[in-house]
Amino acid sequence: MSSWYSQKQTDDVVVSTRIRLARNLNGFPFAARMDASAREKVNGLVKKAILESDTPFAKQLRFIAMNDVPENEVYAMVERHIISPDFAENRDGRAIIISQDESICVMIGEEDHIRIQVLLCGLQLEKAYDLANQIDELLSAGLSYAFDEQLGYLTECPTNLGTGMRASVMMHLPACENNGTVAQILEAIGKIGFTVRGIYGEGSKAQGALYQISNQITLGIAEKNAMGNLALIARQIAEKERAAREAIDRTTLEDAVWRAYGTLKYLRKVSSEETAKLISYVSMGVSMGILSIGDKNPMEMLIETQPHMLCRKFGEKQASERDVLRADMIRKWLQS
Amino acid sequence: MSSWYSQKQTDDVVVSTRIRLARNLNGFPFAARMDASAREKVNGLVKKAILESDTPFAKQLRFIAMNDVPENEVYAMVERHIISPDFAENRDGRAIIISQDESICVMIGEEDHIRIQVLLCGLQLEKAYDLANQIDELLSAGLSYAFDEQLGYLTECPTNLGTGMRASVMMHLPACENNGTVAQILEAIGKIGFTVRGIYGEGSKAQGALYQISNQITLGIAEKNAMGNLALIARQIAEKERAAREAIDRTTLEDAVWRAYGTLKYLRKVSSEETAKLISYVSMGVSMGILSIGDKNPMEMLIETQPHMLCRKFGEKQASERDVLRADMIRKWLQS
Repeated sequence: MSSWYSQKQTDDVVVSTRIRLARNLNGFPFAARMDASAREKVNGLVKKAILESDTPFAKQLRFIAMNDVPENEVYAMVERHIISPDFAENRDGRAIIISQDESICVMIGEEDHIRIQVLLCGLQLEKAYDLANQIDELLSAGLSYAFDEQLGYLTECPTNLGTGMRASVMMHLPACENNGTVAQILEAIGKIGFTVRGIYGEGSKAQGALYQISNQITLGIAEKNAMGNLALIARQIAEKERAAREAIDRTTLEDAVWRAYGTLKYLRKVSSEETAKLISYVSMGVSMGILSIGDKNPMEMLIETQPHMLCRKFGEKQASERDVLRADMIRKWLQS
Repeated sequence: MSSWYSQKQTDDVVVSTRIRLARNLNGFPFAARMDASAREKVNGLVKKAILESDTPFAKQLRFIAMNDVPENEVYAMVERHIISPDFAENRDGRAIIISQDESICVMIGEEDHIRIQVLLCGLQLEKAYDLANQIDELLSAGLSYAFDEQLGYLTECPTNLGTGMRASVMMHLPACENNGTVAQILEAIGKIGFTVRGIYGEGSKAQGALYQISNQITLGIAEKNAMGNLALIARQIAEKERAAREAIDRTTLEDAVWRAYGTLKYLRKVSSEETAKLISYVSMGVSMGILSIGDKNPMEMLIETQPHMLCRKFGEKQASERDVLRADMIRKWLQS
């Protein structure tokens, strides 16, 4: 049971799929206004509804109070995309319910009372939605959702009103980034109700040519339609990326891929930003059949060498020490 | 009998030593004003004086009329430092007398009637001078040199008047280049009668952190003194370079060296300029014990992947084709 980033990449462009459902309970103020006692009650209600549901499904899940999680592990969770940066910053009285493989994570007391997140490798919108839906059904069976017949699910931020669903795909677009068409794509899809963000969500910059594309419209649209539109957009962008990859002069492409490989294989210190760039080339090279790295998983190395993931493994370290540890890990990985 | 650049490097900073003696014959105008018939006569006189001297030494040498040398080989000779770029450009009626290992080359009809050049690996000023002197003695025994009791050897350019000797050492100064002290060194030695040039002589830029340092003063100074001063300067600069290498943060240094190695080992196309940079790092790494490349000789690879050296080996090629052939050669070299 490995996490999304440790699984073998099944798609040459779409790295991962994420479904997030925002839900709130009747009888409590929105999360930002909840006091400690209200938070405790909501945590208890959600925990009970899911974990005591006596479904086989519930047995894989466990409840974790965020205050029990060591600081580095909290930010390592952000780096693994399990929780949001906001949730990591403000964790008093907050909790998660998480599956062993971390594909399911319910944040309790984030912007909304409940945020159900499912994160899977590759392009798996329907499967992700189905899993999120199972959690949603457990919760709605035992709890009273803030729901309006006209508007749908009520959420703290109006941008989530309606379905409360955000569906995203993380796409690897090195060739479109390289030929400058990424900017055009982003502008075009913005006009039709999609947003693009960097690898670490809202406001974050794209690293390693990884772009998160999400539906923006949650009101007046069925979940299935929103997902269908996203899948369509993702497939179109993937086609553009494939065409852009093929359009690069083959020797130039092979040179860039192999240089990145050679650099990663021998470097002695490296920042996470540069790691992302180098791994991006190697990853593209692998998916285009330019080089083979056996069972080695570039995305796994990218995530595992993030700053807090390193501190979680090696203890608290300065940036300069991390750069050396990161280089050591990558070298051993490629030389093994 | 391998050439200077194919021999194992014996010095961590001084790559090669060159002695050049400029000589002119009485009874002929300076080379620039010689007609075809005068050139033929001078060629014949020099050839006879050296090759018919019946010394064991003479048997290693052969006479080559420059018009018999294919164009690519002419410029490949420049790249191997055997002849000057000027001599390559204007070769009608000109000739060389060259040893099998190319350590001795007498250019006939360059700026002066005779230019005796000896080129050896590492720091070997005395040995190089001794070899040049043997040629000089063969010539002076059979020919009448343009010589003035007061001035010494008469040369076309007044900067060579006197001894007619230019002694040079080619130094590898990556750390001084990196910390910016190269400029200071160059300025300082300029004030005391030395010049610094790039790897391909006058007016050429330093490539791969290789600097040619030569005595500038030829008038009123004995050859031995000029060489002694150069050796002293070379040793001082070498000390500065060693100190600068040691002053680099070890991880930063190892990182740069290993990245250069990894890049060279896997690249698919590369210019000669970039090759020089990358080989410079690997070469420094080898001489500092950071990495071992067995019997592989970085200087040999640097010379053998020069543009005309490649064309000599693979036939006439465009720059873009050469970049690929160069990458192939380097990759095979490091992966063997």
